[in-house]
Amino acid sequence: MSQINRRLLHKDAPIGVFDSGVGGLTVAREIMRQIPNEKIIYFGDTARVPYGSKSRETVTRFSEQIVRFLRTFQVKTIVVACNTASAYALDVLEKDIDIPIIGVIKPGAKVAVEVTKNGRIGVIATDATIGSQMYHKYIKELNENVTIYGKACPLFVPLIEEGLLEDPVTDEIARRYLAELIDIDIDTLILGCTHYPLIRSALGRIIGEKVTLVNPAYETARELKGMLKDLDLLNDEKPGLGSNLYQFYVSDKAEKFVRFANSIIKYGILSAKTINIEEY
Amino acid sequence: MSQINRRLLHKDAPIGVFDSGVGGLTVAREIMRQIPNEKIIYFGDTARVPYGSKSRETVTRFSEQIVRFLRTFQVKTIVVACNTASAYALDVLEKDIDIPIIGVIKPGAKVAVEVTKNGRIGVIATDATIGSQMYHKYIKELNENVTIYGKACPLFVPLIEEGLLEDPVTDEIARRYLAELIDIDIDTLILGCTHYPLIRSALGRIIGEKVTLVNPAYETARELKGMLKDLDLLNDEKPGLGSNLYQFYVSDKAEKFVRFANSIIKYGILSAKTINIEEY
Repeated sequence: MSQINRRLLHKDAPIGVFDSGVGGLTVAREIMRQIPNEKIIYFGDTARVPYGSKSRETVTRFSEQIVRFLRTFQVKTIVVACNTASAYALDVLEKDIDIPIIGVIKPGAKVAVEVTKNGRIGVIATDATIGSQMYHKYIKELNENVTIYGKACPLFVPLIEEGLLEDPVTDEIARRYLAELIDIDIDTLILGCTHYPLIRSALGRIIGEKVTLVNPAYETARELKGMLKDLDLLNDEKPGLGSNLYQFYVSDKAEKFVRFANSIIKYGILSAKTINIEEY
Repeated sequence: MSQINRRLLHKDAPIGVFDSGVGGLTVAREIMRQIPNEKIIYFGDTARVPYGSKSRETVTRFSEQIVRFLRTFQVKTIVVACNTASAYALDVLEKDIDIPIIGVIKPGAKVAVEVTKNGRIGVIATDATIGSQMYHKYIKELNENVTIYGKACPLFVPLIEEGLLEDPVTDEIARRYLAELIDIDIDTLILGCTHYPLIRSALGRIIGEKVTLVNPAYETARELKGMLKDLDLLNDEKPGLGSNLYQFYVSDKAEKFVRFANSIIKYGILSAKTINIEEY
Protein backbone atom coordinates (compact mmCIF):
# COMPACT_ATOMS: atom_id res chain seq x y z
CA MET A 1 0.00 0.00 0.00
CA SER A 2 1.16 3.56 -0.64
CA GLN A 3 1.78 5.74 2.40
CA ILE A 4 -1.54 6.53 4.06
CA ASN A 5 -1.98 10.18 4.87
CA ARG A 6 -4.01 9.85 8.05
CA ARG A 7 -4.38 13.62 8.49
CA LEU A 8 -6.43 13.88 5.31
CA LEU A 9 -8.96 11.33 6.56
CA HIS A 10 -12.01 12.23 8.61
CA LYS A 11 -13.83 10.05 11.13
CA ASP A 12 -17.22 11.01 9.77
CA ALA A 13 -16.31 10.30 6.14
CA PRO A 14 -18.16 7.38 4.52
CA ILE A 15 -16.78 3.90 3.80
CA GLY A 16 -16.77 2.91 0.12
CA VAL A 17 -17.93 -0.66 -0.62
CA PHE A 18 -18.09 -2.23 -4.07
CA ASP A 19 -19.01 -5.44 -5.82
CA SER A 20 -19.81 -6.62 -9.35
CA GLY A 21 -23.49 -6.48 -8.40
CA VAL A 22 -25.64 -7.43 -5.42
CA GLY A 23 -23.42 -10.06 -3.78
CA GLY A 24 -21.38 -7.48 -1.87
CA LEU A 25 -24.53 -6.52 0.01
CA THR A 26 -23.88 -9.53 2.26
CA VAL A 27 -20.66 -7.74 3.26
CA ALA A 28 -22.34 -4.33 3.57
CA ARG A 29 -24.94 -5.97 5.82
CA GLU A 30 -22.21 -7.18 8.20
CA ILE A 31 -20.61 -3.73 8.28
CA MET A 32 -24.00 -2.18 9.14
CA ARG A 33 -24.42 -4.70 11.98
CA GLN A 34 -20.94 -4.44 13.47
CA ILE A 35 -20.24 -0.70 13.10
CA PRO A 36 -23.66 0.94 12.87
CA ASN A 37 -22.34 4.51 13.14
CA GLU A 38 -20.58 4.31 9.79
CA LYS A 39 -21.86 5.84 6.57
CA ILE A 40 -21.57 3.60 3.48
CA ILE A 41 -21.38 4.42 -0.22
CA TYR A 42 -22.12 1.15 -2.04
CA PHE A 43 -21.47 0.61 -5.74
CA GLY A 44 -22.69 -2.45 -7.69
CA ASP A 45 -21.43 -2.82 -11.27
CA THR A 46 -24.71 -4.21 -12.58
CA ALA A 47 -23.98 -3.16 -16.19
CA ARG A 48 -20.95 -5.45 -16.39
CA VAL A 49 -21.83 -8.20 -13.89
CA PRO A 50 -20.63 -10.96 -13.54
CA TYR A 51 -16.88 -10.61 -12.91
CA GLY A 52 -16.22 -14.27 -12.05
CA SER A 53 -15.87 -15.44 -15.66
CA LYS A 54 -13.70 -12.51 -16.82
CA SER A 55 -9.96 -11.90 -17.01
CA ARG A 56 -7.56 -10.31 -14.56
CA GLU A 57 -6.98 -7.34 -16.88
CA THR A 58 -10.66 -6.62 -17.36
CA VAL A 59 -11.60 -7.02 -13.68
CA THR A 60 -8.68 -4.77 -12.71
CA ARG A 61 -9.69 -2.05 -15.19
CA PHE A 62 -13.28 -2.16 -13.95
CA SER A 63 -12.13 -2.03 -10.29
CA GLU A 64 -9.88 0.96 -10.95
CA GLN A 65 -12.80 2.87 -12.46
CA ILE A 66 -14.95 2.08 -9.42
CA VAL A 67 -12.24 3.22 -6.99
CA ARG A 68 -12.04 6.53 -8.87
CA PHE A 69 -15.81 6.87 -8.59
CA LEU A 70 -15.88 6.08 -4.85
CA ARG A 71 -13.09 8.57 -4.14
CA THR A 72 -15.28 11.40 -5.42
CA PHE A 73 -17.14 10.93 -2.09
CA GLN A 74 -13.93 11.44 -0.03
CA VAL A 75 -14.32 7.96 1.47
CA LYS A 76 -11.99 7.18 4.36
CA THR A 77 -11.51 3.55 3.30
CA ILE A 78 -12.61 1.15 0.59
CA VAL A 79 -13.86 -2.43 1.01
CA VAL A 80 -13.56 -4.65 -2.07
CA ALA A 81 -16.66 -6.71 -1.28
CA CYS A 82 -16.19 -9.06 -4.22
CA ASN A 83 -13.98 -12.13 -4.13
CA THR A 84 -13.07 -11.94 -7.81
CA ALA A 85 -12.03 -8.27 -7.60
CA SER A 86 -10.15 -9.00 -4.35
CA ALA A 87 -8.35 -11.90 -6.02
CA TYR A 88 -7.44 -10.12 -9.25
CA ALA A 89 -7.24 -6.39 -8.50
CA LEU A 90 -6.45 -5.76 -4.82
CA ASP A 91 -2.67 -5.86 -5.25
CA VAL A 92 -2.79 -3.26 -8.03
CA LEU A 93 -5.35 -1.06 -6.26
CA GLU A 94 -3.26 -1.01 -3.06
CA LYS A 95 -0.19 0.23 -4.87
CA ASP A 96 -1.81 3.40 -6.17
CA ILE A 97 -3.91 4.49 -3.22
CA ASP A 98 -3.28 6.61 -0.12
CA ILE A 99 -6.31 5.45 1.88
CA PRO A 100 -6.73 2.01 3.47
CA ILE A 101 -8.30 -0.63 1.23
CA ILE A 102 -9.24 -4.18 2.22
CA GLY A 103 -10.60 -7.21 0.39
CA VAL A 104 -12.60 -10.23 1.51
CA ILE A 105 -10.10 -13.01 0.82
CA LYS A 106 -7.49 -12.42 3.52
CA PRO A 107 -10.09 -12.22 6.35
CA GLY A 108 -11.79 -15.38 5.05
CA ALA A 109 -8.49 -17.24 4.84
CA LYS A 110 -7.60 -16.21 8.40
CA VAL A 111 -10.76 -17.53 10.02
CA ALA A 112 -10.61 -20.78 8.01
CA VAL A 113 -7.11 -21.49 9.34
CA GLU A 114 -8.33 -20.85 12.89
CA VAL A 115 -11.35 -23.11 12.47
CA THR A 116 -9.90 -26.20 10.76
CA LYS A 117 -8.95 -29.15 12.96
CA ASN A 118 -7.87 -31.69 10.33
CA GLY A 119 -6.01 -29.13 8.16
CA ARG A 120 -8.18 -29.76 5.09
CA ILE A 121 -9.95 -26.64 3.84
CA GLY A 122 -12.27 -26.41 0.83
CA VAL A 123 -12.90 -23.19 -1.10
CA ILE A 124 -15.87 -22.72 -3.43
CA ALA A 125 -15.84 -19.62 -5.64
CA THR A 126 -16.01 -18.29 -9.20
CA ASP A 127 -13.70 -19.53 -11.96
CA ALA A 128 -11.63 -16.36 -11.58
CA THR A 129 -11.16 -16.58 -7.81
CA ILE A 130 -10.22 -20.27 -7.93
CA GLY A 131 -7.89 -19.68 -10.88
CA SER A 132 -6.13 -16.84 -9.05
CA GLN A 133 -5.12 -19.19 -6.18
CA MET A 134 -5.33 -16.24 -3.76
CA TYR A 135 -7.05 -18.20 -0.95
CA HIS A 136 -4.32 -20.80 -1.36
CA LYS A 137 -1.62 -18.13 -1.11
CA TYR A 138 -3.01 -16.39 2.00
CA ILE A 139 -3.76 -19.67 3.80
CA LYS A 140 -0.26 -21.02 3.12
CA GLU A 141 1.23 -17.78 4.50
CA LEU A 142 -0.66 -18.39 7.75
CA ASN A 143 -0.05 -22.13 8.03
CA GLU A 144 1.87 -24.03 5.41
CA ASN A 145 0.70 -27.41 6.73
CA VAL A 146 -2.88 -26.82 5.71
CA THR A 147 -4.13 -28.37 2.45
CA ILE A 148 -6.53 -26.32 0.31
CA TYR A 149 -8.97 -27.73 -2.24
CA GLY A 150 -10.53 -25.19 -4.62
CA LYS A 151 -13.67 -25.80 -6.65
CA ALA A 152 -15.14 -23.35 -9.17
CA CYS A 153 -18.96 -23.24 -9.07
CA PRO A 154 -20.00 -21.03 -12.02
CA LEU A 155 -23.70 -21.92 -11.92
CA PHE A 156 -24.35 -20.84 -8.31
CA VAL A 157 -24.53 -17.09 -9.10
CA PRO A 158 -27.08 -17.45 -11.94
CA LEU A 159 -29.17 -19.87 -9.82
CA ILE A 160 -29.13 -17.42 -6.88
CA GLU A 161 -29.93 -14.44 -9.13
CA GLU A 162 -32.87 -16.49 -10.47
CA GLY A 163 -34.08 -16.90 -6.88
CA LEU A 164 -33.68 -20.69 -6.67
CA LEU A 165 -32.32 -20.54 -3.11
CA GLU A 166 -34.28 -23.59 -1.93
CA ASP A 167 -34.76 -25.75 -4.98
CA PRO A 168 -34.00 -29.31 -6.11
CA VAL A 169 -32.02 -27.99 -9.11
CA THR A 170 -29.72 -25.91 -6.89
CA ASP A 171 -29.33 -28.95 -4.61
CA GLU A 172 -28.42 -31.18 -7.58
CA ILE A 173 -25.82 -28.70 -8.88
CA ALA A 174 -24.43 -28.29 -5.34
CA ARG A 175 -24.15 -32.09 -4.96
CA ARG A 176 -22.04 -32.22 -8.16
CA TYR A 177 -19.78 -29.31 -7.19
CA LEU A 178 -19.29 -30.49 -3.60
CA ALA A 179 -18.86 -34.24 -4.32
CA GLU A 180 -15.07 -34.16 -4.57
CA LEU A 181 -14.74 -31.91 -1.51
CA ILE A 182 -16.79 -34.45 0.48
CA ASP A 183 -14.63 -37.32 -0.84
CA ILE A 184 -11.42 -35.70 0.38
CA ASP A 185 -12.81 -35.15 3.86
CA ILE A 186 -12.52 -31.38 4.33
CA ASP A 187 -13.70 -30.07 7.72
CA THR A 188 -13.94 -26.37 6.70
CA LEU A 189 -15.55 -24.80 3.65
CA ILE A 190 -14.96 -21.17 2.67
CA LEU A 191 -17.90 -19.53 0.85
CA GLY A 192 -15.53 -17.70 -1.50
CA CYS A 193 -18.14 -15.64 -3.38
CA THR A 194 -20.33 -13.03 -1.73
CA HIS A 195 -23.46 -14.57 -3.26
CA TYR A 196 -22.99 -17.95 -1.63
CA PRO A 197 -24.17 -17.10 1.92
CA LEU A 198 -27.61 -16.79 0.32
CA ILE A 199 -27.66 -20.59 -0.29
CA ARG A 200 -25.91 -21.38 2.99
CA SER A 201 -28.61 -23.76 4.20
CA ALA A 202 -28.54 -25.85 1.01
CA LEU A 203 -24.73 -25.98 1.10
CA GLY A 204 -24.73 -26.97 4.77
CA ARG A 205 -27.27 -29.73 4.20
CA ILE A 206 -25.25 -31.23 1.34
CA ILE A 207 -21.73 -30.87 2.71
CA GLY A 208 -22.86 -32.27 6.09
CA GLU A 209 -22.84 -30.93 9.63
CA LYS A 210 -19.26 -31.99 10.35
CA VAL A 211 -18.00 -29.29 7.99
CA THR A 212 -17.81 -25.68 9.25
CA LEU A 213 -18.95 -23.07 6.72
CA VAL A 214 -16.86 -19.88 6.72
CA ASN A 215 -18.50 -16.66 5.51
CA PRO A 216 -15.75 -14.07 4.84
CA ALA A 217 -18.31 -11.23 5.08
CA TYR A 218 -18.44 -11.45 8.88
CA GLU A 219 -14.66 -11.57 9.26
CA THR A 220 -14.16 -8.74 6.75
CA ALA A 221 -16.42 -6.43 8.76
CA ARG A 222 -14.53 -7.40 11.94
CA GLU A 223 -11.18 -6.64 10.31
CA LEU A 224 -12.52 -3.34 8.98
CA LYS A 225 -13.67 -2.36 12.47
CA GLY A 226 -10.27 -3.23 13.98
CA MET A 227 -8.41 -1.32 11.29
CA LEU A 228 -10.54 1.81 11.66
CA LYS A 229 -10.07 1.62 15.45
CA ASP A 230 -6.29 1.33 15.13
CA LEU A 231 -6.25 4.36 12.82
CA ASP A 232 -8.62 6.28 15.16
CA LEU A 233 -11.07 6.55 12.26
CA LEU A 234 -14.20 4.98 13.80
CA ASN A 235 -17.12 7.37 13.73
CA ASP A 236 -17.80 8.24 17.38
CA GLU A 237 -21.26 9.61 16.90
CA LYS A 238 -24.36 8.17 15.34
CA PRO A 239 -25.08 10.32 12.28
CA GLY A 240 -28.34 12.21 12.70
CA LEU A 241 -31.54 11.75 10.74
CA GLY A 242 -31.35 12.98 7.17
CA SER A 243 -27.63 12.30 6.95
CA ASN A 244 -27.99 9.68 4.20
CA LEU A 245 -26.36 6.92 6.20
CA TYR A 246 -26.38 4.46 3.30
CA GLN A 247 -26.20 5.46 -0.36
CA PHE A 248 -26.40 2.98 -3.23
CA TYR A 249 -25.11 3.45 -6.77
CA VAL A 250 -25.24 1.02 -9.67
CA SER A 251 -24.23 1.05 -13.33
CA ASP A 252 -27.59 -0.37 -14.52
CA LYS A 253 -31.10 -1.45 -13.45
CA ALA A 254 -31.43 0.49 -10.20
CA GLU A 255 -34.97 -0.73 -9.53
CA LYS A 256 -34.08 -4.41 -9.78
CA PHE A 257 -31.09 -3.76 -7.51
CA VAL A 258 -33.28 -2.10 -4.89
CA ARG A 259 -35.70 -5.05 -4.90
CA PHE A 260 -32.85 -7.53 -4.41
CA ALA A 261 -31.15 -5.30 -1.81
CA ASN A 262 -34.28 -5.13 0.29
CA SER A 263 -34.46 -8.92 0.38
CA ILE A 264 -30.92 -9.02 1.83
CA ILE A 265 -30.72 -5.90 4.00
CA LYS A 266 -33.48 -5.05 6.44
CA TYR A 267 -32.96 -1.29 6.55
CA GLY A 268 -35.59 -0.26 4.02
CA ILE A 269 -33.45 0.75 1.05
CA LEU A 270 -35.54 3.26 -0.85
CA SER A 271 -33.45 4.01 -3.91
CA ALA A 272 -30.25 3.48 -5.89
CA LYS A 273 -28.83 5.88 -8.42
CA THR A 274 -27.59 4.78 -11.86
CA ILE A 275 -24.27 6.20 -13.08
CA ASN A 276 -22.11 5.56 -16.16
CA ILE A 277 -19.05 3.93 -14.61
CA GLU A 278 -17.16 3.93 -17.92
CA GLU A 279 -16.72 7.69 -17.52
CA TYR A 280 -14.49 7.23 -14.45
CA MET B 1 -32.60 3.92 -41.70
CA SER B 2 -30.64 6.95 -42.91
CA GLN B 3 -30.05 7.25 -46.64
CA ILE B 4 -27.66 4.50 -47.73
CA ASN B 5 -24.87 5.76 -49.90
CA ARG B 6 -24.44 2.73 -52.15
CA ARG B 7 -21.54 4.26 -54.07
CA LEU B 8 -19.36 4.26 -50.96
CA LEU B 9 -19.86 0.52 -50.44
CA HIS B 10 -17.66 -2.14 -52.00
CA LYS B 11 -18.58 -5.71 -52.91
CA ASP B 12 -15.42 -7.10 -51.41
CA ALA B 13 -15.78 -5.25 -48.11
CA PRO B 14 -16.41 -7.45 -45.05
CA ILE B 15 -19.68 -7.96 -43.20
CA GLY B 16 -19.67 -6.88 -39.53
CA VAL B 17 -21.38 -9.28 -37.12
CA PHE B 18 -21.71 -8.73 -33.39
CA ASP B 19 -23.12 -10.34 -30.27
CA SER B 20 -22.74 -10.04 -26.50
CA GLY B 21 -20.45 -13.08 -26.63
CA VAL B 22 -20.37 -16.44 -28.38
CA GLY B 23 -24.08 -16.90 -29.16
CA GLY B 24 -23.89 -14.88 -32.36
CA LEU B 25 -21.53 -17.48 -33.77
CA THR B 26 -24.62 -19.57 -34.59
CA VAL B 27 -25.60 -16.70 -36.91
CA ALA B 28 -22.07 -16.26 -38.31
CA ARG B 29 -22.06 -20.02 -39.05
CA GLU B 30 -25.20 -19.67 -41.18
CA ILE B 31 -23.73 -16.70 -43.08
CA MET B 32 -20.58 -18.74 -43.77
CA ARG B 33 -22.73 -21.59 -45.11
CA GLN B 34 -25.11 -19.56 -47.24
CA ILE B 35 -22.74 -16.92 -48.68
CA PRO B 36 -19.28 -18.46 -48.46
CA ASN B 37 -17.57 -15.73 -50.52
CA GLU B 38 -18.17 -13.11 -47.85
CA LYS B 39 -15.56 -11.84 -45.41
CA ILE B 40 -16.73 -11.49 -41.81
CA ILE B 41 -15.51 -9.33 -38.94
CA TYR B 42 -17.05 -10.81 -35.78
CA PHE B 43 -17.10 -9.01 -32.44
CA GLY B 44 -18.17 -10.69 -29.14
CA ASP B 45 -18.50 -8.40 -26.10
CA THR B 46 -17.13 -10.98 -23.66
CA ALA B 47 -16.08 -8.33 -21.10
CA ARG B 48 -19.69 -7.21 -20.59
CA VAL B 49 -21.65 -10.38 -21.42
CA PRO B 50 -24.53 -11.11 -20.77
CA TYR B 51 -26.82 -8.46 -22.24
CA GLY B 52 -30.11 -10.27 -21.58
CA SER B 53 -30.44 -9.08 -17.97
CA LYS B 54 -29.47 -5.46 -18.66
CA SER B 55 -31.41 -2.30 -19.53
CA ARG B 56 -32.30 -0.77 -22.88
CA GLU B 57 -30.02 2.24 -22.22
CA THR B 58 -27.00 0.10 -21.36
CA VAL B 59 -27.45 -2.37 -24.22
CA THR B 60 -27.90 0.53 -26.65
CA ARG B 61 -24.74 2.29 -25.43
CA PHE B 62 -22.75 -0.94 -25.73
CA SER B 63 -24.15 -1.60 -29.22
CA GLU B 64 -23.28 1.92 -30.42
CA GLN B 65 -19.67 1.42 -29.29
CA ILE B 66 -19.50 -1.87 -31.18
CA VAL B 67 -20.91 -0.35 -34.37
CA ARG B 68 -18.23 2.37 -34.19
CA PHE B 69 -15.60 -0.35 -33.80
CA LEU B 70 -16.90 -2.43 -36.72
CA ARG B 71 -17.02 0.62 -38.99
CA THR B 72 -13.27 1.06 -38.63
CA PHE B 73 -13.09 -1.99 -40.97
CA GLN B 74 -15.20 -0.26 -43.68
CA VAL B 75 -17.82 -3.01 -43.41
CA LYS B 76 -20.50 -2.96 -46.11
CA THR B 77 -23.24 -4.06 -43.72
CA ILE B 78 -23.75 -4.96 -40.05
CA VAL B 79 -25.65 -7.93 -38.63
CA VAL B 80 -26.83 -7.56 -35.03
CA ALA B 81 -26.49 -11.26 -34.21
CA CYS B 82 -27.93 -10.89 -30.72
CA ASN B 83 -31.63 -10.92 -29.94
CA THR B 84 -31.32 -8.57 -26.96
CA ALA B 85 -29.35 -5.97 -28.94
CA SER B 86 -31.76 -6.37 -31.88
CA ALA B 87 -34.72 -5.84 -29.53
CA TYR B 88 -33.33 -2.85 -27.65
CA ALA B 89 -30.89 -1.07 -29.96
CA LEU B 90 -31.68 -1.75 -33.64
CA ASP B 91 -34.13 1.17 -33.99
CA VAL B 92 -31.56 3.63 -32.63
CA LEU B 93 -28.67 2.14 -34.61
CA GLU B 94 -30.64 2.32 -37.88
CA LYS B 95 -31.33 6.01 -37.44
CA ASP B 96 -27.70 7.05 -37.34
CA ILE B 97 -26.14 4.82 -39.96
CA ASP B 98 -25.64 5.06 -43.73
CA ILE B 99 -24.93 1.37 -44.37
CA PRO B 100 -27.52 -1.43 -44.19
CA ILE B 101 -27.98 -3.00 -40.76
CA ILE B 102 -30.17 -6.00 -39.91
CA GLY B 103 -31.13 -7.80 -36.73
CA VAL B 104 -32.29 -11.35 -35.98
CA ILE B 105 -35.80 -10.67 -34.69
CA LYS B 106 -37.60 -9.60 -37.87
CA PRO B 107 -36.37 -12.62 -39.89
CA GLY B 108 -37.32 -14.98 -37.04
CA ALA B 109 -40.77 -13.44 -36.75
CA LYS B 110 -41.31 -13.77 -40.51
CA VAL B 111 -40.58 -17.48 -40.70
CA ALA B 112 -42.64 -18.22 -37.57
CA VAL B 113 -45.70 -16.60 -39.15
CA GLU B 114 -45.16 -18.69 -42.31
CA VAL B 115 -44.79 -21.91 -40.34
CA THR B 116 -47.65 -21.73 -37.81
CA LYS B 117 -50.87 -23.52 -38.66
CA ASN B 118 -52.91 -22.96 -35.50
CA GLY B 119 -51.79 -19.33 -35.09
CA ARG B 120 -50.22 -19.92 -31.66
CA ILE B 121 -46.52 -19.04 -31.53
CA GLY B 122 -44.23 -19.32 -28.50
CA VAL B 123 -41.06 -17.25 -28.06
CA ILE B 124 -38.32 -18.18 -25.59
CA ALA B 125 -35.60 -15.57 -25.00
CA THR B 126 -33.80 -13.48 -22.40
CA ASP B 127 -35.62 -11.24 -19.91
CA ALA B 128 -34.71 -8.22 -22.04
CA THR B 129 -35.96 -9.62 -25.37
CA ILE B 130 -39.25 -10.82 -23.86
CA GLY B 131 -39.72 -7.52 -22.00
CA SER B 132 -39.16 -5.53 -25.20
CA GLN B 133 -42.12 -7.27 -26.93
CA MET B 134 -40.33 -6.91 -30.29
CA TYR B 135 -41.21 -10.42 -31.54
CA HIS B 136 -44.80 -9.60 -30.63
CA LYS B 137 -44.65 -6.31 -32.56
CA TYR B 138 -43.13 -7.75 -35.75
CA ILE B 139 -45.41 -10.82 -35.77
CA LYS B 140 -48.53 -8.67 -35.32
CA GLU B 141 -47.42 -6.47 -38.23
CA LEU B 142 -47.29 -9.57 -40.44
CA ASN B 143 -50.50 -11.21 -39.19
CA GLU B 144 -52.60 -9.68 -36.49
CA ASN B 145 -54.59 -12.87 -35.94
CA VAL B 146 -51.62 -14.76 -34.55
CA THR B 147 -51.28 -15.07 -30.78
CA ILE B 148 -47.77 -14.85 -29.27
CA TYR B 149 -46.70 -16.26 -25.92
CA GLY B 150 -43.33 -15.05 -24.60
CA LYS B 151 -41.35 -16.81 -21.89
CA ALA B 152 -38.07 -15.51 -20.43
CA CYS B 153 -35.53 -18.29 -19.79
CA PRO B 154 -32.63 -16.62 -17.92
CA LEU B 155 -30.91 -19.85 -16.84
CA PHE B 156 -30.44 -21.29 -20.34
CA VAL B 157 -27.42 -19.12 -21.22
CA PRO B 158 -25.44 -19.95 -18.03
CA LEU B 159 -26.29 -23.67 -18.43
CA ILE B 160 -25.12 -23.61 -22.07
CA GLU B 161 -21.96 -21.65 -21.22
CA GLU B 162 -21.27 -24.32 -18.55
CA GLY B 163 -21.54 -26.97 -21.28
CA LEU B 164 -24.62 -28.77 -19.91
CA LEU B 165 -26.13 -29.23 -23.38
CA GLU B 166 -27.34 -32.77 -22.71
CA ASP B 167 -27.99 -32.95 -19.00
CA PRO B 168 -30.87 -33.79 -16.63
CA VAL B 169 -30.55 -30.35 -14.98
CA THR B 170 -30.99 -28.52 -18.30
CA ASP B 171 -33.94 -30.82 -19.07
CA GLU B 172 -35.56 -30.04 -15.70
CA ILE B 173 -35.15 -26.27 -16.17
CA ALA B 174 -36.48 -26.56 -19.74
CA ARG B 175 -39.52 -28.52 -18.49
CA ARG B 176 -40.31 -25.67 -16.08
CA TYR B 177 -39.85 -22.90 -18.63
CA LEU B 178 -41.77 -24.70 -21.39
CA ALA B 179 -44.64 -26.05 -19.24
CA GLU B 180 -46.99 -23.11 -19.84
CA LEU B 181 -46.19 -23.02 -23.57
CA ILE B 182 -47.12 -26.71 -23.80
CA ASP B 183 -50.35 -26.06 -21.85
CA ILE B 184 -51.49 -23.38 -24.28
CA ASP B 185 -50.91 -25.62 -27.29
CA ILE B 186 -48.42 -23.62 -29.39
CA ASP B 187 -47.40 -25.24 -32.68
CA THR B 188 -44.33 -23.05 -33.34
CA LEU B 189 -41.49 -22.09 -30.98
CA ILE B 190 -39.01 -19.32 -31.81
CA LEU B 191 -35.55 -19.84 -30.30
CA GLY B 192 -35.24 -16.12 -29.52
CA CYS B 193 -31.67 -16.14 -28.20
CA THR B 194 -28.67 -17.06 -30.32
CA HIS B 195 -27.46 -19.51 -27.64
CA TYR B 196 -30.58 -21.66 -27.74
CA PRO B 197 -29.92 -23.61 -30.98
CA LEU B 198 -27.14 -25.28 -28.98
CA ILE B 199 -29.77 -27.05 -26.80
CA ARG B 200 -32.13 -27.60 -29.70
CA SER B 201 -32.39 -31.35 -29.19
CA ALA B 202 -33.32 -31.03 -25.50
CA LEU B 203 -35.90 -28.35 -26.33
CA GLY B 204 -37.37 -30.46 -29.13
CA ARG B 205 -37.64 -33.51 -26.89
CA ILE B 206 -39.47 -31.58 -24.16
CA ILE B 207 -41.77 -29.40 -26.27
CA GLY B 208 -42.75 -32.42 -28.41
CA GLU B 209 -42.49 -33.23 -32.11
CA LYS B 210 -45.74 -31.47 -33.02
CA VAL B 211 -44.08 -28.11 -32.36
CA THR B 212 -41.82 -26.62 -35.06
CA LEU B 213 -38.66 -25.00 -33.73
CA VAL B 214 -37.67 -21.79 -35.53
CA ASN B 215 -33.99 -20.77 -35.50
CA PRO B 216 -33.75 -17.11 -36.60
CA ALA B 217 -30.06 -17.58 -37.52
CA TYR B 218 -30.92 -19.42 -40.73
CA GLU B 219 -33.54 -16.88 -41.79
CA THR B 220 -31.26 -13.95 -40.91
CA ALA B 221 -28.52 -15.26 -43.21
CA ARG B 222 -31.11 -15.76 -45.96
CA GLU B 223 -32.39 -12.19 -45.55
CA LEU B 224 -28.83 -10.88 -45.54
CA LYS B 225 -28.09 -12.70 -48.78
CA GLY B 226 -31.22 -11.31 -50.42
CA MET B 227 -30.48 -7.78 -49.28
CA LEU B 228 -26.88 -7.87 -50.52
CA LYS B 229 -28.10 -9.25 -53.85
CA ASP B 230 -30.68 -6.49 -54.22
CA LEU B 231 -28.02 -3.88 -53.52
CA ASP B 232 -25.58 -5.60 -55.88
CA LEU B 233 -23.20 -6.02 -52.96
CA LEU B 234 -22.64 -9.80 -53.00
CA ASN B 235 -18.98 -10.67 -53.35
CA ASP B 236 -18.65 -12.28 -56.79
CA GLU B 237 -15.29 -13.87 -56.24
CA LYS B 238 -14.05 -16.26 -53.62
CA PRO B 239 -11.36 -14.34 -51.71
CA GLY B 240 -7.96 -15.93 -52.20
CA LEU B 241 -5.81 -17.64 -49.63
CA GLY B 242 -4.29 -15.33 -47.05
CA SER B 243 -7.15 -12.86 -47.34
CA ASN B 244 -8.27 -13.28 -43.73
CA LEU B 245 -11.76 -14.41 -44.62
CA TYR B 246 -12.95 -14.49 -41.02
CA GLN B 247 -11.59 -12.26 -38.26
CA PHE B 248 -12.69 -12.47 -34.63
CA TYR B 249 -12.46 -9.74 -31.99
CA VAL B 250 -13.56 -9.87 -28.36
CA SER B 251 -13.44 -7.53 -25.37
CA ASP B 252 -12.05 -10.24 -23.02
CA LYS B 253 -10.79 -13.83 -22.78
CA ALA B 254 -9.84 -14.47 -26.38
CA GLU B 255 -8.56 -17.99 -25.72
CA LYS B 256 -11.78 -19.17 -24.10
CA PHE B 257 -13.71 -17.62 -27.00
CA VAL B 258 -11.61 -19.48 -29.57
CA ARG B 259 -12.20 -22.80 -27.79
CA PHE B 260 -15.96 -22.23 -27.75
CA ALA B 261 -15.98 -20.92 -31.33
CA ASN B 262 -14.25 -24.04 -32.60
CA SER B 263 -16.94 -26.20 -31.01
CA ILE B 264 -19.60 -24.29 -32.98
CA ILE B 265 -17.91 -23.43 -36.27
CA LYS B 266 -15.99 -26.04 -38.22
CA TYR B 267 -13.60 -23.72 -40.02
CA GLY B 268 -10.62 -24.03 -37.68
CA ILE B 269 -10.65 -20.64 -35.96
CA LEU B 270 -7.07 -20.02 -34.95
CA SER B 271 -7.23 -16.80 -33.00
CA ALA B 272 -9.26 -13.89 -31.71
CA LYS B 273 -7.92 -10.48 -30.79
CA THR B 274 -8.82 -8.66 -27.57
CA ILE B 275 -9.68 -4.96 -27.79
CA ASN B 276 -10.91 -2.39 -25.26
CA ILE B 277 -14.41 -1.67 -26.56
CA GLU B 278 -14.95 1.16 -24.05
CA GLU B 279 -12.55 3.27 -26.11
CA TYR B 280 -14.96 3.38 -29.07
